Amino acid sequence: MRVTALAGGVGAGKFLRGLVRAVPAEDVTVIVNTGDDIVLHGLHVSPDVDSVTYWLAGVADRERGWGMAGETFRAAEKLRELGAPGSWFNLGDLDLATHLFRTDLLALGMSLSEVTQRITERFGVRSLVLPMTDDPVTTRVQAVDESGSSLDLHFQEYWVQRGAQDEVQSIRYEGAEQAAPSRGVIPAIEEADVVVICPSNPVASIGPILAIPGVRAAVAERDERVVGVSPIVGGAPLRGMADKLLPVVGVDVDAAAVATYYDGLVHRWVIDRRDTDLLERTAELVPVAGVFDTVMDTDSRAEALARYVLDLH
Amino acid sequence: MRVTALAGGVGAGKFLRGLVRAVPAEDVTVIVNTGDDIVLHGLHVSPDVDSVTYWLAGVADRERGWGMAGETFRAAEKLRELGAPGSWFNLGDLDLATHLFRTDLLALGMSLSEVTQRITERFGVRSLVLPMTDDPVTTRVQAVDESGSSLDLHFQEYWVQRGAQDEVQSIRYEGAEQAAPSRGVIPAIEEADVVVICPSNPVASIGPILAIPGVRAAVAERDERVVGVSPIVGGAPLRGMADKLLPVVGVDVDAAAVATYYDGLVHRWVIDRRDTDLLERTAELVPVAGVFDTVMDTDSRAEALARYVLDLH
Repeated sequence: MRVTALAGGVGAGKFLRGLVRAVPAEDVTVIVNTGDDIVLHGLHVSPDVDSVTYWLAGVADRERGWGMAGETFRAAEKLRELGAPGSWFNLGDLDLATHLFRTDLLALGMSLSEVTQRITERFGVRSLVLPMTDDPVTTRVQAVDESGSSLDLHFQEYWVQRGAQDEVQSIRYEGAEQAAPSRGVIPAIEEADVVVICPSNPVASIGPILAIPGVRAAVAERDERVVGVSPIVGGAPLRGMADKLLPVVGVDVDAAAVATYYDGLVHRWVIDRRDTDLLERTAELVPVAGVFDTVMDTDSRAEALARYVLDLH
Repeated sequence: MRVTALAGGVGAGKFLRGLVRAVPAEDVTVIVNTGDDIVLHGLHVSPDVDSVTYWLAGVADRERGWGMAGETFRAAEKLRELGAPGSWFNLGDLDLATHLFRTDLLALGMSLSEVTQRITERFGVRSLVLPMTDDPVTTRVQAVDESGSSLDLHFQEYWVQRGAQDEVQSIRYEGAEQAAPSRGVIPAIEEADVVVICPSNPVASIGPILAIPGVRAAVAERDERVVGVSPIVGGAPLRGMADKLLPVVGVDVDAAAVATYYDGLVHRWVIDRRDTDLLERTAELVPVAGVFDTVMDTDSRAEALARYVLDLH
C-alpha cells in the first residue's frame, strides 16, 4: 500500500513513526511544509523537513518535540551571550550540522529536494521526504502588537521570537503562487493508495502545501482516498498555536470544525476519543468520520492510529 | 607607549597576552592577517582574527593553541558523520557562534572591521583588533601532490585539510594588490611608538599583511621603531608549517635567516636563547639583535618577552 502524507512538524513526525510501522517505510512519501523555512546566520533552516527527518530516523527528542535527542545548545548560548541578531532561534549543536550541511549543498547548486534526499539518506530514512517546493515560499503573519502597532512577521518571528503574543490579522504564503511543487510531489499524490493529512497545524503547516499550484487539485481528485487526522484535541492543539491561527481563517478550534478547513479535500476524518461527543457533528461535515486515540505518546500508539487511519472506510 | 602589532594566530596570541600586561591594553592595536579566511558552510571564518580575539579575551585554549578553552565539537562530529564537504575544518561549537555572529553582521552590510570591533567588544577585548583589509584576500598555495599532480589550494586546504603534505612550489596572496588596508591600519603603524612583528609564520601570516598596498611602506618608514620576534626556535617553528613555506621564498629555516624575510623592515630582531649561537649572525643581518626566552608557556613569560622587546635598543 502506497501512502503519501502531507506533513508539518511534531504531530506529523509522531504519526509518521507509526505509519512506517504499519506499512513498509519505502512505500511512504512525505510532502513537507517549507513555508516556515528561514535563513539564519546565513544558514538555510528547514524546521519541518528536519522534524520529519529526525522523527523518521528515530533521533527526534520526544519530550521537547523538536530537534534531536541528546542535543546540546552550546553555540546557541554563546550566540545569545554575543547578542547575535538571530540568536532567538535556538539552534542545537547537532541540529546546526544539518543546517551547515544543507547550506553547503545548496551552495553547490543542488535543489532543496536534492539536498533533502541526501540528508535523509545520511540519516538512514527509507521513506521519500519531499519538500513541498524548491522555490522560496514564506508564511508571513500580519499582526498587531499590544501597543496597536502593525507587524508583518516571518512565521518564525511570530512563533519562536515573539512567542505568538501578537493578535494575528491575516496569514499569507508569500511566493506560493509563483512556486512549483517539487519534482515527485504531484505523482506521489496521484499514485498513492491513501493520502494522509497529518495532525499538523492546518494554517501554518498544511495550508502552505495546499497553496502550491496543482497540489490542492491533485489531492481533491483522490477523493475517498484522502484521510485526515484532527490536530485539535479537546478544543486545543496538543502543541503549537493552531488555536490562534484557525479563527483568523474563520475556523472554530474544535476537532470537527477543523475538518472544514479541508472542505472538498478530506473524505475521512479522524478525531480523538476525547472528542467523541463531536463524532455526530463530524459525520455531518465529512463522508466518513472516525474516532481513535490520536495522542501518540509512543510509537505503538502511533502505529495503532496509522492502522486505523489506513483501514477507515 | 602606543604599540602596533602585526599578527597571525597562536604565536601572536601568546605574545599579545604578554604585551597587554606590559602596556595598557587600550594602547595596543593589532593588525591581523585575513589571508587564510575561508567561507565554510556559508559562514565567514577568520581564523587569525579569532585566535587573536580569543587570546586577548583570555578564553583561548592554551594547550590546543587554537579555539576556545572548554570547547566541544558536537556539530563538527555530526558534520563528519553526514559527510559534509567542509567537515575537514574542525569548527568548535562555541567557535561556531562567533562565525554565525560574524556572518549575521556581514549580511547586515557591516564591514569585516566593523564586525571585528563588535565581536572583540563582546569578548571584552580592550585592544583595537584590525583585520588587515576588508577586501577579499586569499593566500593560495601552488603545490604538487605525491603523485606529481599540480594543486592550487586555499591555504586552509593545504594546511588543515591536507596536513601540509604537498610539496609547495609557490605562494600567492590573491586579491592583495587590489585590496586596501582597513580603516585605521596605516595610521596605527604611523602613530605607534613601537611596531612589533609578532612571532607568527612570516609567509602565511605576516606576508599577506605586508602585501596590502601601503602597509610595507608604512612599516619601513618607522625604521628603528620596528622590532620582530623570531617564530623559528632551534631551527623549526614552535607550531605550524613555516619550515615548509620559508624555503619556498628562499629563506633558511633558522632564527637569524628568517629576519631576512623582513629585510629593510625590522630594525631590531629577537631570537630565542636556545639560538644564542646565532646571535652574531643575526647582528650582521639587522641593526639591533637581541636574545631572550621566546617560548611563552605562561602569560608571565610572554610579559617578560614583551617588556624585553619594547625596551630593546
